[in-house]
Amino acid sequence: MIRHTVVFRLKHAAGSSEEEAFLRDADVLASSPGVDRFEQLRQVSPKNDFAFGFSMEFTDAAAYAAYNDHPDHVAFVRDRWVPEVEAFLEIDYVPINGYPVATTG
Amino acid sequence: MIRHTVVFRLKHAAGSSEEEAFLRDADVLASSPGVDRFEQLRQVSPKNDFAFGFSMEFTDAAAYAAYNDHPDHVAFVRDRWVPEVEAFLEIDYVPINGYPVATTG
Repeated sequence: MIRHTVVFRLKHAAGSSEEEAFLRDADVLASSPGVDRFEQLRQVSPKNDFAFGFSMEFTDAAAYAAYNDHPDHVAFVRDRWVPEVEAFLEIDYVPINGYPVATTG
Repeated sequence: MIRHTVVFRLKHAAGSSEEEAFLRDADVLASSPGVDRFEQLRQVSPKNDFAFGFSMEFTDAAAYAAYNDHPDHVAFVRDRWVPEVEAFLEIDYVPINGYPVATTG
């Protein structure tokens, strides 16, 4: 299992219709082949400057690579992510050997 | 639900016995009151400089605050986290209204 996460903030004002549209349209990512457990999240810690997060899981590196190259993902990044996202950080996780991972149950 | 995550790197060499001991001893956090779905994770994206992550979930802000103030957490931060962690970033998530969160199922 590979859990791909990205924490980000938008150029749009909080609560704006543009923000709402971005999040709604990002649901296209959830239905891309190989994507499991897609989540949209609000970032609430005051210890960083990000406002939102997406999280998704892939079975293996091949599934993750296929998602990265999928036309729906490529188009979303080009047409929405690059123009509308102000800052982001990608963090990817795999289980530590022998350590139980709650979310695969 | 509040998902508290922290991505970090240690001062210890990769694969060292000190690294192993830190991760093993961090399991004390998993059994703190109010902590659900505790995970230890390896950070694998080349797009940041962190090596590990912890993730846990709380029912609400009161449970999160109780964890922060719990003697086991306070002692771990003082005796292990501060001296052994080189850099970290805390990221906390809550579900976006109306959006299904896979990991609460």
